[in-house]
Formats: sequence, C-alpha cells, structure tokens
Amino acid sequence: MYHARFRDPAGSVREGRYDPDSDTVAFGDDEYALDHPEIDVLPPVEPTKIVCVGRNYAEHAAEFDNEIPDRPLLFLKAPNALASHGSTVTLPGGKDRLDWEAELAVVIGEACTDVDAADAMDVVAGFTCMNDLSNRDDQNREQNWVRGKAFDNAAPLGPVLATPDEVPADASVELHVNGDRKQAGDRSQLAFDVPTLIEEITTYMTLEAGDVIATGTPDGVGPLADGDTVEVTVEGVGTLRHDVRIP
Amino acid sequence: MYHARFRDPAGSVREGRYDPDSDTVAFGDDEYALDHPEIDVLPPVEPTKIVCVGRNYAEHAAEFDNEIPDRPLLFLKAPNALASHGSTVTLPGGKDRLDWEAELAVVIGEACTDVDAADAMDVVAGFTCMNDLSNRDDQNREQNWVRGKAFDNAAPLGPVLATPDEVPADASVELHVNGDRKQAGDRSQLAFDVPTLIEEITTYMTLEAGDVIATGTPDGVGPLADGDTVEVTVEGVGTLRHDVRIP
Repeated sequence: MYHARFRDPAGSVREGRYDPDSDTVAFGDDEYALDHPEIDVLPPVEPTKIVCVGRNYAEHAAEFDNEIPDRPLLFLKAPNALASHGSTVTLPGGKDRLDWEAELAVVIGEACTDVDAADAMDVVAGFTCMNDLSNRDDQNREQNWVRGKAFDNAAPLGPVLATPDEVPADASVELHVNGDRKQAGDRSQLAFDVPTLIEEITTYMTLEAGDVIATGTPDGVGPLADGDTVEVTVEGVGTLRHDVRIP
Repeated sequence: MYHARFRDPAGSVREGRYDPDSDTVAFGDDEYALDHPEIDVLPPVEPTKIVCVGRNYAEHAAEFDNEIPDRPLLFLKAPNALASHGSTVTLPGGKDRLDWEAELAVVIGEACTDVDAADAMDVVAGFTCMNDLSNRDDQNREQNWVRGKAFDNAAPLGPVLATPDEVPADASVELHVNGDRKQAGDRSQLAFDVPTLIEEITTYMTLEAGDVIATGTPDGVGPLADGDTVEVTVEGVGTLRHDVRIP
C-alpha cells in the first residue's frame, strides 16, 4: 500500500493513497496523475528530524578513502532541508562541488525509544526515496556537517510512502542524472541494516512518528550542475525526481 | 516583557505572561507562581531545530585545548532534546562524563533566510537560558556530535522568553551546581556575536519562528552526578533550574 501527501488544485493539503498501476494519487473521489500540473506532491511525511547515516555501503566509503565505521556514523538534517518530488531545488551558490546521494529512507510510524533490533520493524511505517544532497566544500571544512548537509533543500524526499511489504529485502537503490545511471546498490548491501540503525539511534534519542532515517548511499556519487534532472529510484517505492538550480 | 508557556492545573497548554517582580505566570485571570506545584513550566517556544555554536568563548575553547575557529562551529539538536524548567532530566547511563554547559539562547521571531548582520536583531523574538548537556564519551568518538549532543533531554530550555530590551549587551551567563558557582561569562565575550551568528546560519538554512540558536558556553564546564541540581542564569532572563538523574 502507498500513501501520498499533496496540495490539491484548491490549495488544500491532502493525505491520500497512491496507486502505482495508474500512477495516480487520490483523496476521496478526487484522483490526479502523480505529475498532474495542478497538484503539488509534498514530502510524504513531516519529520521533526532526519537522522542520516554516512558510510553505510562499503564501496561508497571506499570512494572517499574511508572504511565502514565500527558503529553507524550519524548526522542530522532539520525540516528546513525537505524538498518535494517534481520541484526545482535551489542549492548554495559559489561552491565547487554539490553532490547527489541516492538513499533508501525509512519512515517511523510511532514515537519510540530504546527499541530492540528484533522489534524494530514494528515501528517502521514504510520506506521512501531521499537524495542526501551534499555541499562538499563546507562538509570537508567543518566538524559537524551542518553547512555541508543541512542546508535548505538538502533532502528531497518522496514521492510516496510505501509500506514495508512493498519493499524487498534486496530492493535496488538507483540514481540517474539527466537519464544516465550514476548509482546502483541495494538494501542488502547496508553495512548496518534498518533494525540495527533503529536500535542504535533510539538508544540515544526518541524517534517520532514521521521521523526519517536516511540509510546511506551506494558508490557512484558525483557533482551536480545547474539544470540537471535527478531521479532516485528505490525498488518497491518508485522514483523521486527533481531538477537542480545552482545560482 | 516576558513570555511563558505552561501546562495549567487542568492540563491545558497556555502561552501567557511572566512577571519577574512577583515571579508569577499568568493567562487571562489565572495567575500562578512560576514554581507552583500544580503547573508545569514548558520550554518557552517549540523550535523545529536548535542550532548550537561550539567554542564561542575563548576561555572555554582553551580549556579543551581548542582555539576559536575561523567561522562559527555549528551543530544541531532536534526537538527530542528539549527539557523543561523544574524537571528532572534523565541522561544516558553508563557514561564516564556528562557535562553541563550554560548558554545564552536566542529565540527567532519570524521565518527568515539570508539575513544581513545589520538587520539580524529584527528577527530576534528574545532570549532564554539553555543547558547544552554534553555526553563527552560519545562526542569524542564521533564525526558529528549526535550521540554526544542530541540525545533526549540534552537541551533544558527556559524558564521564560525575555524580549531583547530586557537583556543587556553584557548580560552575565552563569551556572551553579548544587548552589556552587561553576561558570561565569557574559554576552560581550562571544567570539561571534548574535547578529554574526544569524547571518552565518541563514546563509545556509532558513530559521523558523521559535527556532533557537544556542550561542556557546563560557569556561568552567564539568561533570554532572546523579542527583545534582543545575541552575543556568542569564541576566535579564532569569534562572533555568533542573535536576539530573543518571541511571
């Protein structure tokens, strides 16, 4: 089953269903194509925080001469980072390198703390796609990746929320830029799997309903240019698409 | 002028006034002592994020053999970190060192981005007190200070919001543990002052109404013990008091 949030032609924000066969979103009797020009698809949830995981695929860690850490490398994005499917996201100007990073994103379904890995899937509402946009210029200069990772529009999220049964254990995670495939990994390659991440994070902090865990990116990250079109595809979820503007 | 949020004896959350002369909070005709046992004082605002600044007082940077960085050292706490005046905060168990850090906290009054320092005070609703509680065991082991700084209860905030006119340019920032003074600095010692911080942060991210900037701590940080009572006092705001439980 799939859930979507969208602003309808009258301007009302609706939480409705998505039908992957017809590629439509619906609220009551009103049904629209996902990419209908008179609706705005919104991030499928409203997180209080996005907990991100770095270096969680061995081949991505290696491409920056890093290793998988001994426990998950965590960082935070706040709600200002959210951006929507179908939007043009404006990124910081004057930087040498702004990178794409395709990620499988976990959506939490209920407030929870001190969750054991064995029970962790009970608190998962589902999955969506995220682009963990990264400003390397600043990331490489700062202790905490705030300017580098938590800037406005640094987390396009969507297009829909897929319940856990829709997303296979080896779901592929791919990214295309202007139609060319740049990244291809799958969920089974996560160094720290979803239950392990939930246990580790909730040892320290409460996760709220709607909070997001971004599980890390496969290898193949690279620099964006003004005007690029990016597509993040997670098998069982669908494709998050956005354009890029770099002033 | 002073604003307070509290849960009244009927359980309703109220946003009312604080009168420092009588040490009372009021909503309509109902007035209570700030520490009345039948009300719960709440953090004076509901931030979407807390943007914290490290090493912003020279003598504190020096006590950990650091220098003032060439631009503000930023890190994030999410809303799960908030805790209230008058509460007993439970901190992570099994750690060797959990530290206090008294801070002047800035509350943002309106959504804003790309703010010039010259105009920055226009977006400030006021000031409050924060204890930037720090789990050094984990902070010293991680790239991003998430386990170290963003755990549940890591940001006691309050007791009230003081409008900018109440807080002098050299407002003292002090901390007492069990009645003994441990920290004493003042706002004029900030390496990066409030307008500079707002300009720098909003270069990268939108600040929302209610968001908080924690401006860093003076020297004199140190370790907490189970049962301690901590008081953070900012001149012109008042005193944030909480107890500590370490399981």
